[in-house]
Amino acid sequence: MVLCFLCIRLKDGFAEGKDLVVTAMASMGEDQICALKDIRVHLFRFLSGISDFLFVDEKIPEKIQKAAANSNSNNLTLDEVREALIRQEDTIVFRLIQRANFPVNSPTYDEKFASFSGSLLQFVVKETEALQSKVGRYENPEEQPFSPENLPPSLVPPQADPPVLHPAAASININEKIWDFYFNQLLPLFAVPGDDGNYASTASSDLDCLQAISRRIHYGYYVAEVKFKDAPQDYEPAIRAQDREGLMKLLTFEAVEEMVKKRVEKKAAVFGQDVCLVDNGNGKYKVDPSVVSRLYGEWIMPLTKLVQVEYLLRRLD
Amino acid sequence: MVLCFLCIRLKDGFAEGKDLVVTAMASMGEDQICALKDIRVHLFRFLSGISDFLFVDEKIPEKIQKAAANSNSNNLTLDEVREALIRQEDTIVFRLIQRANFPVNSPTYDEKFASFSGSLLQFVVKETEALQSKVGRYENPEEQPFSPENLPPSLVPPQADPPVLHPAAASININEKIWDFYFNQLLPLFAVPGDDGNYASTASSDLDCLQAISRRIHYGYYVAEVKFKDAPQDYEPAIRAQDREGLMKLLTFEAVEEMVKKRVEKKAAVFGQDVCLVDNGNGKYKVDPSVVSRLYGEWIMPLTKLVQVEYLLRRLD
Repeated sequence: MVLCFLCIRLKDGFAEGKDLVVTAMASMGEDQICALKDIRVHLFRFLSGISDFLFVDEKIPEKIQKAAANSNSNNLTLDEVREALIRQEDTIVFRLIQRANFPVNSPTYDEKFASFSGSLLQFVVKETEALQSKVGRYENPEEQPFSPENLPPSLVPPQADPPVLHPAAASININEKIWDFYFNQLLPLFAVPGDDGNYASTASSDLDCLQAISRRIHYGYYVAEVKFKDAPQDYEPAIRAQDREGLMKLLTFEAVEEMVKKRVEKKAAVFGQDVCLVDNGNGKYKVDPSVVSRLYGEWIMPLTKLVQVEYLLRRLD
Repeated sequence: MVLCFLCIRLKDGFAEGKDLVVTAMASMGEDQICALKDIRVHLFRFLSGISDFLFVDEKIPEKIQKAAANSNSNNLTLDEVREALIRQEDTIVFRLIQRANFPVNSPTYDEKFASFSGSLLQFVVKETEALQSKVGRYENPEEQPFSPENLPPSLVPPQADPPVLHPAAASININEKIWDFYFNQLLPLFAVPGDDGNYASTASSDLDCLQAISRRIHYGYYVAEVKFKDAPQDYEPAIRAQDREGLMKLLTFEAVEEMVKKRVEKKAAVFGQDVCLVDNGNGKYKVDPSVVSRLYGEWIMPLTKLVQVEYLLRRLD
């Protein structure tokens, strides 16, 4: 009876938001939660299904997190994925705010501006990525370069950890799409028109934004891996049929996406305010919070799901 | 009588904080403020004397800012210096928070870790600065390299703006002191012990912190230049006598320094909180706000004054 009750509440919870779910679980012991897992009411699948959107916020009690973490047989835990994605939201907001310190600064993107081939931006991206490659950045699967041609090898010792992901991850790099939306759609929404001459800092700040967004989107590998490991039977039919649409449906939780958009909007308001001693804020934000919400709704979440689909399509290879 | 009244209030304001000063001035017209300047009650000197510590926050009315800006004959305005320093506080706090995402990661600093000479950190600093030099970073006087040896020349067209600073600025680089306190004293205060393997990101994050702190400290050139331009008669005797102590006294405002420490502490609390949808914060901060207060009180403000003293000592050369 308890279980039926919980199943109903889970469905309700899914439709209405999160509080119902968390409330039901918070009143249970860790043992009960583990028992639920064993009898496969898909509680943890439900939890891992939503983990990339993090609607559980900081409110999910530790005992649930612990039980959920224990439900994974490999090294990757829900908890780790969740924490990484939360931190990455902060990083993305911080970097957009830093980029907004400069106006558009169009000479940064002008191929005829400097005495090297390509734009100052292209030069900074290519050279920075080459340097970062030497110090092992691209040994991490979630780090994908924007200039992948002729990257020098890493000069640092490889990590001893066993790989968590299917090797297919290495072949999925959607940075061209990220580059395209960042410069053609996002940047004009939050950088004011103008030219203050700080082209080197502008290029470096653009690369910081691009890399933070790219890491967040390619972190989809881990989200997909956790979901797959937790319920392979749900994904295998769609994978064998190479059914993109079916996979995308399995990965889409609209109510949750709305909540993520609200949270990042709030982060942009908190981190982008003017902090003074006497009181906070003049009502102005360094980056319009609604732009950050749009960034997540129109680009980051859809492209994360694209990475997940691409990864899952190759997961059984 | 109005003037005497204002002089007294200014002295009181200086002792007690800012509100008195701002209140007295806010009730005056721009003309009256300009008149005050002309009869040399040192109002603007007072304002420019404190501008680097920014205790005026966002509260100083626009008409005062405008009058103050007009009091400078060169291109550099109080307003610009003030805005740059406020923005830099945010940048420093953001970057410390980003560095705090990683534990200490000591292999980053181990000279025997990788297959190049020196530590991974030294490699990243040297190579990044070489790249940034090519795109003109060090054409800005407030940008001082940590690896100044053999930096390649800039490949981008020089700025057309006339120089604001005395050429002596170029010879003042106190990055050795900054490097020393950052690694030996500050870092252990906010990075937790441990090793998560992210050495490349750690090195790059350290350099981000170092560069933000260094820019803030070397911005002392501009602070000193504004102060000198506004009241050369106050500084010239000490400069001619090469009186470091006397200059340091002219540049020290203890009550104001206390207020800056409080403001950056508040920024660390606001920007370093966990932002959730339901409510904010679990009372934990990503970087202990008191560490940021100490960073300003023990290192950034004293070293900014050191840069100002060094600059002023050479200002008449």
